[in-house]
Amino acid sequence: MLASDEGGVTAESEWVAVDWGTSNLRVWGIGRGGHVLFSRTSAQGMATLAPDAYPRVLADILAPDVAPAGKPLDALICGMAGARQGWMEAPYLDAPADLATLAAAAVTAPVPGGRLRARILPGVCQRGDGAEDVMRGEETQLLGLSTLVPHFSGIVCMPGTHCKWVVLSGRRVERFATVMTGELFDVLRAHSVLRHACTGAGQGPDHALGFKSGLAAGGDAPQRLPAMLFKVRAGALLSARTPDWCAGYLSGLLIGAEIGAQREWFGRGDLAVVGSAGLVELYGAAMAREGKQPLIVDGHAASLAGLLAARQEARG
Amino acid sequence: MLASDEGGVTAESEWVAVDWGTSNLRVWGIGRGGHVLFSRTSAQGMATLAPDAYPRVLADILAPDVAPAGKPLDALICGMAGARQGWMEAPYLDAPADLATLAAAAVTAPVPGGRLRARILPGVCQRGDGAEDVMRGEETQLLGLSTLVPHFSGIVCMPGTHCKWVVLSGRRVERFATVMTGELFDVLRAHSVLRHACTGAGQGPDHALGFKSGLAAGGDAPQRLPAMLFKVRAGALLSARTPDWCAGYLSGLLIGAEIGAQREWFGRGDLAVVGSAGLVELYGAAMAREGKQPLIVDGHAASLAGLLAARQEARG
Repeated sequence: MLASDEGGVTAESEWVAVDWGTSNLRVWGIGRGGHVLFSRTSAQGMATLAPDAYPRVLADILAPDVAPAGKPLDALICGMAGARQGWMEAPYLDAPADLATLAAAAVTAPVPGGRLRARILPGVCQRGDGAEDVMRGEETQLLGLSTLVPHFSGIVCMPGTHCKWVVLSGRRVERFATVMTGELFDVLRAHSVLRHACTGAGQGPDHALGFKSGLAAGGDAPQRLPAMLFKVRAGALLSARTPDWCAGYLSGLLIGAEIGAQREWFGRGDLAVVGSAGLVELYGAAMAREGKQPLIVDGHAASLAGLLAARQEARG
Repeated sequence: MLASDEGGVTAESEWVAVDWGTSNLRVWGIGRGGHVLFSRTSAQGMATLAPDAYPRVLADILAPDVAPAGKPLDALICGMAGARQGWMEAPYLDAPADLATLAAAAVTAPVPGGRLRARILPGVCQRGDGAEDVMRGEETQLLGLSTLVPHFSGIVCMPGTHCKWVVLSGRRVERFATVMTGELFDVLRAHSVLRHACTGAGQGPDHALGFKSGLAAGGDAPQRLPAMLFKVRAGALLSARTPDWCAGYLSGLLIGAEIGAQREWFGRGDLAVVGSAGLVELYGAAMAREGKQPLIVDGHAASLAGLLAARQEARG
């Protein structure tokens, strides 16, 4: 819903919160007192954009909200727009990192015309031989989580293409690791020999059975993941496993192996899963198998809360 | 070299041995006493062929050796030509499988014209919920190994796109497992975010350093493979790792994790690695790190020895 639909008033947003990821762009118009006036999404994520396209895309999606004169509209941006191959590089904060300093480290990205003022929040990196890791966007969700759940102290699992596991104490990111579960699923299903078996729609009772079976196999012996992947193909050839079962098994195997390998991370206080509805359900099932009952937080809600908190930090 | 180049005599082969894999076709002309008269290769592997193309491709590559009249030329074939999506399905033998029975289970594939008689050897499968596995071509190499190394009893590691680990006692395949190391390397390097980092040529001192580092990381904690893959990307971003280093690290990480996860297989008598020159060198280095000194056998030599042994079985 656009604010302009309600009473013909344009440009009533005080500022806009922007989550600009690899695949999607999401903006929220924020009014007085931090109220969300509207949200809009677009498929114009980083992966589809050349660096010089960002100002136009942002101006287009915010066109109804930009006043022709007066104070420019502030846009506070998190995510891959700040990557080297994005709009403008926002240098990483080093972990351990205090997320209260995110806003202070933001960079200003130029928008021609002077009606928009865009600031991009940094990501967080971890240095050291063999410990190297990076995140962009998740740091803002973590700041959001620390606002939504004050005094959170423990492990945050953030499933996605590149799943992040984070040790978070309040607003401090102690350390983190990226697990490529989502991307492994995508490339194996699209490009490997398993594509012949995994043509299922990703739902239904056979999918659920396959997922459960894969979860057990991966969770019980995560080190054997590369040796169990081929069971998807062999199961289709020899045991007449259906495409739905195979897709479910592959998904369960990968998530099970991820959770199984990260067992050492558990038992450090709180446990949260932050992500999209579909993924948090799958990871919740995997963690229940470990006897864990994580706090579930919607990924978009965490991003928004983080951008709100960063805006507050920026303004003191 | 064609036999016909030496003295103008055509069709002196008694029969031809054929290894017809996914990517390549390789034929050997066999003369009296099992001597190899010639070998030829072509890129017309199963992946490039429709079922009805096989007879023509085989007739073409063997044209100089097929006599216009008299006894038809026998071709004994192993590999993916016998898969369901190949020329003609040669049903699997079930493991535990006696490889002395391979020839008896071969199927006859039709070749129009009657100047060629083609027989395709079966693969071996392993049934049972969660134990499902298949091989095609490797069973013939295993029969070859049992001929080249009489009384071999132990573990055979057969690196490739789909690496096979086999418990072999003489000519008996006890059990086996497929590890998708080669295909994981291929799809990650071609289709994942790691493609940005792994543009190296796969050689040089940086490649060797990366391989060694990856081998240690994967071998020490194979269960953490999905969490270590991203280090390739993060190492390039944060520690200025070169494309050669990254490609070497990815290769070492995958092979190290494979060997590390298969540790339970070691210590069962003999140990052999059967494969191409490049791969057996990498796997040999990985096994040396485990204190193992495997017997190294060239993959083509094993295929040829297996086809010779199967021909002998077929003729009693």
